[in-house]
Amino acid sequence: MSLPDQRRVGRPSRPVLDRHRIAEAALTLVDETGDFTLPELARRLGVQTPSLYHHVDGRAGVVELLRERIGQGIDASQLELRPWDVALGAFFRSYRDAFAAHPRVVPFLTTTAVRSPQTLAAYDRMVGLLKEVGVPSAQAMAFLTACENFVIGSALDLAAPDVMWEIPEDVDAPHLASALTGQSNPEHRADNAFEFGLSTLLASIAAHSYRRRPEQEAP
Amino acid sequence: MSLPDQRRVGRPSRPVLDRHRIAEAALTLVDETGDFTLPELARRLGVQTPSLYHHVDGRAGVVELLRERIGQGIDASQLELRPWDVALGAFFRSYRDAFAAHPRVVPFLTTTAVRSPQTLAAYDRMVGLLKEVGVPSAQAMAFLTACENFVIGSALDLAAPDVMWEIPEDVDAPHLASALTGQSNPEHRADNAFEFGLSTLLASIAAHSYRRRPEQEAP
Repeated sequence: MSLPDQRRVGRPSRPVLDRHRIAEAALTLVDETGDFTLPELARRLGVQTPSLYHHVDGRAGVVELLRERIGQGIDASQLELRPWDVALGAFFRSYRDAFAAHPRVVPFLTTTAVRSPQTLAAYDRMVGLLKEVGVPSAQAMAFLTACENFVIGSALDLAAPDVMWEIPEDVDAPHLASALTGQSNPEHRADNAFEFGLSTLLASIAAHSYRRRPEQEAP
Repeated sequence: MSLPDQRRVGRPSRPVLDRHRIAEAALTLVDETGDFTLPELARRLGVQTPSLYHHVDGRAGVVELLRERIGQGIDASQLELRPWDVALGAFFRSYRDAFAAHPRVVPFLTTTAVRSPQTLAAYDRMVGLLKEVGVPSAQAMAFLTACENFVIGSALDLAAPDVMWEIPEDVDAPHLASALTGQSNPEHRADNAFEFGLSTLLASIAAHSYRRRPEQEAP
């Protein structure tokens, strides 16, 4: 009897290795430790490291799996809404929530080129929406990137503690203290900041132009 | 002869443990591995873990050291510039650069309450600037938080590869492809997005009001 057969008989069955299981294990690992290595990922999955290469293209491939896994939490159907700014607003709200659940994954996704088909499809739809309302192609990426940067920063902020500023007794910060106590809905601190920034950025895209002060236009 | 004396004679002198050395070691550790533990930090510094507690208040204390260390790269003197939006713009540009150099530190700083006196002083000055130009206290934190979220997301974007979207041959994304080739200065991709968002947010703060479309005001 060959070794594989012995394993089938003598050991509890182990789920087949697939991209889904690799993604879940990588997400848990990064959530817990802030990083992953292929050997550690293999160890957690109970396989040898080379087995991973049958399913993913090395470390970069695992990052793309993480991107797809986080992306599953984003409701891309929102991009079918109209008008375009309602669609983008709803999409970016969903985007913020999905990233906020996994703050330690964020630096991996933002510092690695996007190759995941689902993510590319969402971007393609967003650019298409902007094109429909006449945003010049040359500016579309800058607009979307600005929104995305804001959404990612806001996701990290959503994962922050409710009380984000703690002024020790020996530190004098009267303006900050007054602004903190003066917040209208401190329990919605992160949401207030997010909605202000999101509506501002979308309104600016609607105007199709950078808002610069006249003196900045001068040489 | 006691053991400490033997060590003084027989071993190369070791720099005195202080907050500066702990900060540098923690920064290197997080840059390299995405995380830190107090035992690992102590090991790298060649000390026992309890020695760290003479200088920092545990793990949270190390995060505040990281915040101060990154903050040293931010030019807070920019906040003395006038008018206020030039001051905030210059400060946030410096802030982006400082965070972009250490993307893996970002989730630690954004998910932990701020207690560092230098950071609190910078916030106090920013709120003071907004107060001077009549921004209501109740809105100051939302405005600054929105800017900061945008800056942090933009810092991660600055740490991203120049080519952030790679469309594989078998993926159809015509709008995205056209927007990518249509970028006016692709080599300044991240800067273009940052300057658009920053000027937009500052202009909106100048207007002291959320920009909402009339139909969003209706019930």
